[in-house]
This record gives sequence, structure tokens and C-alpha cells, in this order.
Amino acid sequence: MLRRGVFFSHRDLDLILDDWASGGGFFLYTGRAPSLGMHIGHLIPFMLTKWVQEKFSVNVYIEITDDEKFLRNPEYTLEETRRWAYDNILDIIAVGFNPDKTFIFQNTEYIGKMYSLVIKIAKKVNFSEASAAFGLKPSSNIGTVFYPAIQLAPTFFEQRRCLIPAGIDQDPYWRLQRDIAGSLGYLKAAQIHSKFLPPLTGPEGKMSSSIPESAVYLSDDPKTVERKVMKHAFSGGQPTADLQRKLGANLEDDVPYQWLYYFLEEDDSKIKRLEEDYASGRMLTGEVKQLLVEKLNSFLEKHRERRENARELVDVFKYDGALAKRMWSSVPP
Amino acid sequence: MLRRGVFFSHRDLDLILDDWASGGGFFLYTGRAPSLGMHIGHLIPFMLTKWVQEKFSVNVYIEITDDEKFLRNPEYTLEETRRWAYDNILDIIAVGFNPDKTFIFQNTEYIGKMYSLVIKIAKKVNFSEASAAFGLKPSSNIGTVFYPAIQLAPTFFEQRRCLIPAGIDQDPYWRLQRDIAGSLGYLKAAQIHSKFLPPLTGPEGKMSSSIPESAVYLSDDPKTVERKVMKHAFSGGQPTADLQRKLGANLEDDVPYQWLYYFLEEDDSKIKRLEEDYASGRMLTGEVKQLLVEKLNSFLEKHRERRENARELVDVFKYDGALAKRMWSSVPP
Repeated sequence: MLRRGVFFSHRDLDLILDDWASGGGFFLYTGRAPSLGMHIGHLIPFMLTKWVQEKFSVNVYIEITDDEKFLRNPEYTLEETRRWAYDNILDIIAVGFNPDKTFIFQNTEYIGKMYSLVIKIAKKVNFSEASAAFGLKPSSNIGTVFYPAIQLAPTFFEQRRCLIPAGIDQDPYWRLQRDIAGSLGYLKAAQIHSKFLPPLTGPEGKMSSSIPESAVYLSDDPKTVERKVMKHAFSGGQPTADLQRKLGANLEDDVPYQWLYYFLEEDDSKIKRLEEDYASGRMLTGEVKQLLVEKLNSFLEKHRERRENARELVDVFKYDGALAKRMWSSVPP
Repeated sequence: MLRRGVFFSHRDLDLILDDWASGGGFFLYTGRAPSLGMHIGHLIPFMLTKWVQEKFSVNVYIEITDDEKFLRNPEYTLEETRRWAYDNILDIIAVGFNPDKTFIFQNTEYIGKMYSLVIKIAKKVNFSEASAAFGLKPSSNIGTVFYPAIQLAPTFFEQRRCLIPAGIDQDPYWRLQRDIAGSLGYLKAAQIHSKFLPPLTGPEGKMSSSIPESAVYLSDDPKTVERKVMKHAFSGGQPTADLQRKLGANLEDDVPYQWLYYFLEEDDSKIKRLEEDYASGRMLTGEVKQLLVEKLNSFLEKHRERRENARELVDVFKYDGALAKRMWSSVPP
């Protein structure tokens, strides 16, 4: 995903590597606003985070913002966002984090421990600044006005530098963090930004839960995946096999190719061959779609197996693992 | 204090009494933003609250807003407001609440338990509304914007009606509570409003910690009390004894008389005689001041004795008393 440009931008990643090289280390932070179901695009920051944890053997903090999701959506109850939190945590654990170096916490449960840190942050940010950064309006509820202080708090969970793999849409939070970190006696957080996987239905925009065929959900069964891809995946290929053989596909518009490129085909030589064959017309749309269906279903099958095993690990990541235990027994600095 | 008009206004006190008469009961809620020292005026809502608790045998919740004090004052640290919280709690306990029916909680400690309730409230209040009620500005920090949700939460600690004895300056909070209580499935809180004891230095305004001689602190020793009253108490008497004997005192301007009337001389016949003698000139300013010094020092001596005993009761009121234990073991409704 680094090679293929899913993570396409960073801020201070060089300082993170310097800190690590000089023995100071760093820590990782990412998070999720819980939803009824996660689609495969949602896994991207978690997969990179897990990979970095593995390579550098560092701590990971994962904030589950059940409060934010409730506050931002008039139609959701706190009971719902908490249920989704549990559900999403299973998918996150399935990514394969180290249970003794990873702390998954739900804001409505952990707020008591981080509140002092949160109000120290809140005192540094006024309504104008929050408004400019997050597009708040006079009609925004006061919970959403306060919320940024909660999302910033984990960047100060350790005195070391924090590295945040997250979608580019979260960047306003980190710019704000960098404005105030020094005055609170902490380091500015570093970021590595991911773009969004294009929706199945076209190369522009984001996958959306209000258009179910635009996304592949982690719970989609093989038949559903096949139907979504074959029927709805937007193709850059030609309308007929003859034309495709003659003119080839436009890869820039082809969502199945892009999903394979960004996410599912790790082998550089294979993706290169696919590009050549598909763009030249030697390969047909149906074949590329079939390849995507196979890759997706194999990915999802393994994910669901790990997800089942995750049930008995929830308490480890939230309360009983080495890092979790430390975070519950002492107040963050 | 009811007879003398210290508590001069109410909202729905009749409904509180109806609820009690019909067996439904009610509960009391008041609070304090901790400060370096409490003056005698600060005790007024607590004294009435304690009296109502005794008469009706009801639960009392006392919120110590160490977060608010920190958020509103650029110059205070959280460590300071927490230290003052402990100190003020001793003065509050000294008022004589029932340890098994009173829960004293500090926001930075208890937020974890009430956060779900707090964000349900926050979701009902937008920035415009909070701004109109509390005079927020674009330059207000986002912690102060959110804070009203925290002050409102305890009004929903029981499904019964809440009665709040508090200074009239807190009324905007309760009006907001009454706007949203129904939509959250709770009853509108009832209030009983106190006015402020006039500053020693004149019949207008509030006692202020930036003008030490304007207030008598609970920690002032007898000599200090005597000096403050004799030297700084604003008198409605005449400049000379002769003139006073001839013209008498103006009680409306006389602070020593007002403190006796509002707070320290409970006996109606004694206060009536004082009024007659002082207004007619039979009593001199020095005598009234001397009476006030005696009453104050006797009040403060007893208070300080109870305050010393309060040290071993702090944990009972905060954690181990019957009501405190219940509030820590279960999340409020």
C-alpha cells in the first residue's frame, strides 16, 4: 500500500524514523467511528498500522468513537453506536494486532481516565478555531464542538512521537494537534495519509452505506460479492469483447483493476502483467472481474475466520492485555 | 433564610411539595466551583439544602466543578482547582449533611460514570442556544461550550423531581434543563433561588476574593473578623454618636444589620428589637458591629470544629456512604 500510493502523503514520517533509529521510539494511533457494518475500505488504515506495529514492535492505541458517532447523527442512539463498537472491534482485532502492545478503547468507557487530558486540550482550542477546522455551525450541538479534544487526547498518551495512519479526511484534527502540542509539553504528531478506495460503482467518490452496491462489506458472502462485482463494478473496458480486444481497457476508470492494484494483488510482476494484458485488450473485463471476485472472497474468508476467533480476544485488547492493563491502572501523563 | 427572603424566588417548589405529599418524593442538587477559600456567603445554598434534607429526609447530590473552574480561568491549573476542591469539600461537609444520603462528586473523578448522560444532554443543545444562555463567544474555549451539559447531568440522577437551591446567577442552566428534560424522558427541575449576601464594604454587588476586606472567609480568625467588620463594614448609621442618637440609622444601607438579618440572627423578636433600636438611634453603629463580630466568630468557631472532623468523612461522602456507593456501582439512569 505504500508502494502503490494508497498512503500517498505524510507529515514528519522522517522524524518518526529518526526517533526510532536513535532509540527513542514512537507509538501508533488510529481509530474508528463505529458503524453498522465495515466495508473493506475501512480496513486500510488498520492494515498499515498493524504492519508498522509488526515491523517496529511499537504500541498501538485504537480509539472507538461511539460518542462522536452518536453526537453527529440525529437518528442514532447511544445503544446502537455501542453495539456497533463491539461489532467493529471484532473486525479490527481480526487484522492481527499484538494483544500486549495494542489498546482498543471506547470513548464512552475510557473517558473517565482521559478526561483531565481532554480538558487541558479543550482549554487550548476556542470555538472559532474549531469552527474553522471542522466546519462547525451555530446549529452544531455542543457535544460535536467539544469532540475534537477527545480525538486529540490519545496523541498525548506517551511522551514519544505519535504516528497516525488515517484517511486524509481526518487531517484537520492533526493540524490542530500540531498547533497546540508544544504548549501542552508534548511532541507534534506525525501522519501518514491514505486515500479512499474508489466505490465499486465508479472511480470517483467514497463507498457509501446508503448505496450498498458501492461497497463490499466484510460480512458479504461469496455470492453477494460475486453479484456486486459482476453486476455493479464500474469497468474501464470496452462495451463488447471485440472492441475490448481491439482498443483495450482504460485503467484509470476501471474499479476492479484499481481494487486489485491498491489492495488485493501484492505481487508487482502480476499486477504489471495484468495492466499490460488488460490495457492492450488481451484480457477481458469479465476475466478481471472474476479475478477480483476470487481475491475478495479469499480475503474475506480469512478475515471472517480471524473475526470468529476475535470474540475471545475483545477483553484482552480492551482490558487485560499488557498495554490495556497499564492504561486502565494509571492515568495517561 | 426563607422567612427573611435570602431565598426570594422559586420555580415549581409547589410541585416538589405535591410530589412529596403524594409519596413520590424528590431529590436535591447543588454544587460549587472550587476556589482557594470559601467565604460565608458561599455557605448559604448549602445551609438551606442541608435543612431541606433534614426536614424531608431526601438524597442530596453535590457537584464540585473542578473542570469548569479550570476551563474558565486561564491562570488556574487543574492541579490547583483539584486541591481547592478537596479544601471546599471540607467546608461543605461541615454544614452537616447526612453521610448516607449525600453524594459529593468531583467532575474530573466522576465524569466516567455520567458521560453517557452528559452526551445525551449535549446532543440536545446547540452552540447558538448555549451561546444565548451563557454569553459564549467565538473566543470561548470548547470546554466551556460543552460544560453546561455536565452541570445539567445531575438533575437527571433520579427519575424523581430535582430541587435545586442555588444562587440566582445559575438560573440560565436550569432554564435550559427545563427546555430539554421532557425530550430526554425526565422531569423539569425545580429551583429555589438565593440572592447574594452584600459585600462587607457596601450594600451593592458581590463579595469578591480580589477585594479581601469585602468578604469574611471561613478561615478568618477572630482578630481578622473583628478588624474587617470594625474597619471596613459599610454602615448606614450617622457619622457621630450624637447624630446617630438624633437621626438613627438607615437599615437599607447598613451591611452589619443585613448580615445579621439574612444570616446570623435567627430570632425574629431579637431582630425586630435591633431594627427598632438601631433605626431610632437608641443603638449605635459600634454596638451593631460588635454584635456582628460576636455572631460571626461564634459561627466560624463552630464551623471550624466541624471542618476538622470533616477530614475523616471525605471518603464517606465521595465513595463509601450508602448513596455514594450506589452512584459508583451503577451508571445513572
